[in-house]
Amino acid sequence: MIIVMGSREQRDVDNVVSKVEQLGYKAHVILGVERTVVAAVGDERDKQRLTALESLPYVEQVVPILKPFKLAGREVKSESSVVECGSAKIGGKHFGVVAGPCSVESREQINETAAICKQYGAHMLRGGAYKPRTSPYSFQGLEEEGLKLLKEAGQANGLPVVTEVITPDNVPLVASYADMLQIGARNMQNYGLLKAVGKVKNPVFLKRGMAATIQELLMCAEYILSEGNPNVILCERGIRTFETETRNTLDIQAVPVLKKYTHLPVVIDPSHSTGHWDLVTPMACAAVAAGADGIMVEVHPRPAEAFSDGPQSLKPDNFADLMKRIKPLVEIMGKVL
Amino acid sequence: MIIVMGSREQRDVDNVVSKVEQLGYKAHVILGVERTVVAAVGDERDKQRLTALESLPYVEQVVPILKPFKLAGREVKSESSVVECGSAKIGGKHFGVVAGPCSVESREQINETAAICKQYGAHMLRGGAYKPRTSPYSFQGLEEEGLKLLKEAGQANGLPVVTEVITPDNVPLVASYADMLQIGARNMQNYGLLKAVGKVKNPVFLKRGMAATIQELLMCAEYILSEGNPNVILCERGIRTFETETRNTLDIQAVPVLKKYTHLPVVIDPSHSTGHWDLVTPMACAAVAAGADGIMVEVHPRPAEAFSDGPQSLKPDNFADLMKRIKPLVEIMGKVL
Amino acid sequence: MIIVMGSREQRDVDNVVSKVEQLGYKAHVILGVERTVVAAVGDERDKQRLTALESLPYVEQVVPILKPFKLAGREVKSESSVVECGSAKIGGKHFGVVAGPCSVESREQINETAAICKQYGAHMLRGGAYKPRTSPYSFQGLEEEGLKLLKEAGQANGLPVVTEVITPDNVPLVASYADMLQIGARNMQNYGLLKAVGKVKNPVFLKRGMAATIQELLMCAEYILSEGNPNVILCERGIRTFETETRNTLDIQAVPVLKKYTHLPVVIDPSHSTGHWDLVTPMACAAVAAGADGIMVEVHPRPAEAFSDGPQSLKPDNFADLMKRIKPLVEIMGKVL
Amino acid sequence: MIIVMGSREQRDVDNVVSKVEQLGYKAHVILGVERTVVAAVGDERDKQRLTALESLPYVEQVVPILKPFKLAGREVKSESSVVECGSAKIGGKHFGVVAGPCSVESREQINETAAICKQYGAHMLRGGAYKPRTSPYSFQGLEEEGLKLLKEAGQANGLPVVTEVITPDNVPLVASYADMLQIGARNMQNYGLLKAVGKVKNPVFLKRGMAATIQELLMCAEYILSEGNPNVILCERGIRTFETETRNTLDIQAVPVLKKYTHLPVVIDPSHSTGHWDLVTPMACAAVAAGADGIMVEVHPRPAEAFSDGPQSLKPDNFADLMKRIKPLVEIMGKVL
Repeated sequence: MIIVMGSREQRDVDNVVSKVEQLGYKAHVILGVERTVVAAVGDERDKQRLTALESLPYVEQVVPILKPFKLAGREVKSESSVVECGSAKIGGKHFGVVAGPCSVESREQINETAAICKQYGAHMLRGGAYKPRTSPYSFQGLEEEGLKLLKEAGQANGLPVVTEVITPDNVPLVASYADMLQIGARNMQNYGLLKAVGKVKNPVFLKRGMAATIQELLMCAEYILSEGNPNVILCERGIRTFETETRNTLDIQAVPVLKKYTHLPVVIDPSHSTGHWDLVTPMACAAVAAGADGIMVEVHPRPAEAFSDGPQSLKPDNFADLMKRIKPLVEIMGKVL
Repeated sequence: MIIVMGSREQRDVDNVVSKVEQLGYKAHVILGVERTVVAAVGDERDKQRLTALESLPYVEQVVPILKPFKLAGREVKSESSVVECGSAKIGGKHFGVVAGPCSVESREQINETAAICKQYGAHMLRGGAYKPRTSPYSFQGLEEEGLKLLKEAGQANGLPVVTEVITPDNVPLVASYADMLQIGARNMQNYGLLKAVGKVKNPVFLKRGMAATIQELLMCAEYILSEGNPNVILCERGIRTFETETRNTLDIQAVPVLKKYTHLPVVIDPSHSTGHWDLVTPMACAAVAAGADGIMVEVHPRPAEAFSDGPQSLKPDNFADLMKRIKPLVEIMGKVL
Repeated sequence: MIIVMGSREQRDVDNVVSKVEQLGYKAHVILGVERTVVAAVGDERDKQRLTALESLPYVEQVVPILKPFKLAGREVKSESSVVECGSAKIGGKHFGVVAGPCSVESREQINETAAICKQYGAHMLRGGAYKPRTSPYSFQGLEEEGLKLLKEAGQANGLPVVTEVITPDNVPLVASYADMLQIGARNMQNYGLLKAVGKVKNPVFLKRGMAATIQELLMCAEYILSEGNPNVILCERGIRTFETETRNTLDIQAVPVLKKYTHLPVVIDPSHSTGHWDLVTPMACAAVAAGADGIMVEVHPRPAEAFSDGPQSLKPDNFADLMKRIKPLVEIMGKVL
Repeated sequence: MIIVMGSREQRDVDNVVSKVEQLGYKAHVILGVERTVVAAVGDERDKQRLTALESLPYVEQVVPILKPFKLAGREVKSESSVVECGSAKIGGKHFGVVAGPCSVESREQINETAAICKQYGAHMLRGGAYKPRTSPYSFQGLEEEGLKLLKEAGQANGLPVVTEVITPDNVPLVASYADMLQIGARNMQNYGLLKAVGKVKNPVFLKRGMAATIQELLMCAEYILSEGNPNVILCERGIRTFETETRNTLDIQAVPVLKKYTHLPVVIDPSHSTGHWDLVTPMACAAVAAGADGIMVEVHPRPAEAFSDGPQSLKPDNFADLMKRIKPLVEIMGKVL
């Protein structure tokens, strides 16, 4: 931490030095031309409480120096992690494709979609059973029945399945059906939920919140990792900005930033970022070239009849085209599809 | 819903008309100079599924016309609601002040703060027992012990208490200690939690998420109201923007926008919006003049020693000054402090 | 500047120290537990070039400590500035109201509006003659004819006038008609224009850009001040965010932040921030209570017929009501209307 | 335009119909279940003035249906445009690489950089002579001397040159040295400048503003096109969001959105979007895969000594690596490097 003094009075500087030392750090005072600065030396990740010094009238600001994550960081584990989930591998050399409908709507719909996904090369099947919807009057998902249908469709087609879990007490139930647990964007900072999925054995697919910084995403992964679950996949799915042509703004730059900081796999969801089916494939291609470890895309046999997210769902032939177009790009990136 | 056609082919228009009618609405076709438009007439709030028509290649966009909230809206209840919580009233003529520390840290700290808040005129005491913290390594709150200390301090000083609840299964416990339940910004769209607080009798203090639109905030209130709990207070506490001089950007315009749309009380939290104690009082004054029904502010006897949110906490004399400065403004607005 | 090292090799640290010294600063090395930091001591405002050290692979980041503005800052001039423009004063004890139409449309329209503005207590008349419009097919203003009509209406009603200037070579012409020159939000960082208005005697009304930080706004004022023109008024008129209920998001927190950093007057424009006439008066009241030195509002005799900005223009009786409502608030703030 | 009524009174509806007809459009009234809607039929691009109806108390909102651009749109010209500039072609099958330093600093520096750019395959040389800098105390460019040095270096190495022009009256001078004129992000809505570059023969490189929507960018191109200059290249260079790990957020989704709407070439600038040299190459690759027509990147022989933008400048070997990595991607996309 660097504490920038607003005052140059010796008494005020002494006061800050004394508070820094009380909290167990060494203080170095640097007299600048216009500002005096106090550097607090020690393990910064526990130094959160030093920020409270900003409440002193003679302190201008407190500037952190270190990144606050540990277990998610490359300093702890330099090689890239590969998350395995049944037959699927995501990370390292393995480019993973997760596909399926927004919601499980019926046995026919999920079976039909699963077969399409398998046919064109997806590695995992997605499908929502518990749907966090903006309106209480919208379709809320088939719940446990949806979990059963999803599992059944996955097994029939040889695809491990991932589905969203939205409350901590529901984690055991969902974990008994699903191979991988998804934390949705709206729940990224639902810490009770993060702790709960940190305690099960299923890998976790963690989506970045719409207004979350890259650092906050990594701190949420840290919650899961610190509970003992090492299998976390990070997913960038668009952040909220002023642009209204698309549902969200895909922060593609998050891919190389995350790959620099963390060993965890990074996946892009171009369906939620764009909100429009005709923008999904170009963004899937961009994701591959940016260095992502996989994509998650929404596929529906008849999007115009979808209960949710119809506008952004790919028809079967669109999905086939997407897979054909990303294949040579994945190879150029030195990965396996 | 207004469906803007990308195509002018009769066949495509017929197709859209037929799908609109299948979903139970009437379709009006308007031939414009450059675009054909299909208006779907019927109760729009159930028309969510019409948006899926955007997935048709010959549909350019689907534009909703109605606001999606019902129970929260002034069309259902035109007079402003007053939420009562023990001795406190917020809404209508009643300007409410909720004050207290970010976290309950100890019996001494919460008792000392409660006495200060009472002395200078607060109507309710706040204090966190379960803390959603960005880092798993930061102080996470005293949990049930904190609830007990908060209740004790409130009762000793004649102040009803409000505290945050972060998981659905914890709602009964927190509701047994706290007079009002707070939903934090990070949990605004934690729908399981919203449904759970919709089922208890305690009033709910609902904070706007950092990236949530005004309409999404109202839809979250709608979740609580539709479960049967009519006592919801909305709180604007700053949204996330590019500006870094302050912790968040206070969307003060949300006050008159919300007052236009909803009968629910609207409260401003200038502590979290600014992130700096010396900006809190000017923003509390602005909140009053903008027409807010109350404020929530953080007060700590010794901010530099606070376990959390020290930089934005008011010292006792700052809080006394805030109360003195808002008093004449509240009166000019025709309200009672 | 604080240079955070990515490497702990002595050779790399020596290299940075040597580059810091070559640029004329003293270097202090602090060995932290996990990072080594080099503090560069000297006049930071010329230290921009030190940021280039971030391009070295062994440097993690370069963190500036000082604010980059000088002449605009309270460190150079601690008392608040009062900008005088004919009979109008804005700043210090003087709360200024600038009112008028978006565009000068005709002699009748501007004369009628000027009389209304004067009648209800405005101090200055606004009106655009050169309009920066999003579309080249929209009304672009009456140009010099508009300037003449504006001046005439101002003089007839005893109101100094302010109007926007959009190109550097037009500054002398506009300055010959207008008492004050406005720099619009889209031109805030049009540095050629800033330099040009810095060279005339007319006071300057500088609007914050839609995506400009508070610090960037102050740096633009610095451009004008450093050319020799000390009379600059800063105007917050809304920034661009994800919220779509309003045209822009009013950053009301910018008022106390700016008042802390700068001696220049700070004015709020609630017409452009809200985009809706019925939100303007509550925001004008909030501006007063937040400590602003004035407001700029759009007034039109018949908004539904306005050539531009109709939705956000006040009708005469709305403007009368606004003036009546802000009066007691201005007095409570210890200012004169 | 769709006018959504707030009132259902016949008198109010009649009033709106009458105003719509007065402005020369046909009005269609649709009685919905909860709202009455008036559709105004006619050429919408001149209908801007209809938005003023939102100022009527009985009108809830006015919703535009058509995109406001004409000449920039694919409806006017469906095939993709190729912009030629000396030996360089950008657009269609031609993927263009524009490289060079942020600023022209000296004859040696620009000559050395030009040779590097040529050697590794750039098609055009960039270099700033007039620099729009945030601080008036920062290096402002070598001005005309810089233009001369840039032209000389371009000619010596067989590279057409592009440089920024910042004031309208400077356009003829800059156009006499430079092959292509750049409009910087801060000047995107400097309409006087847009009109000036619309009148010369040089192609224009138009950068998107930091807070500009995709539609606003197209309207700025429309300004240039409507003055008679058909050679405009659009450049996405990052928008401003809350994320601070990168200088800006690259809106990569703008590429397919723009390609859908416009025939003009679309180029990505990964140097300004990222702000960090080590993120530039992954983003250049993503740009190719997303369907962009080219990239603009900053290259400097010794970034740590750069007068401006050092942190984001590529060293020669980094640029060589970038070119090597994009080559196979460009080929897969069916284009020529």
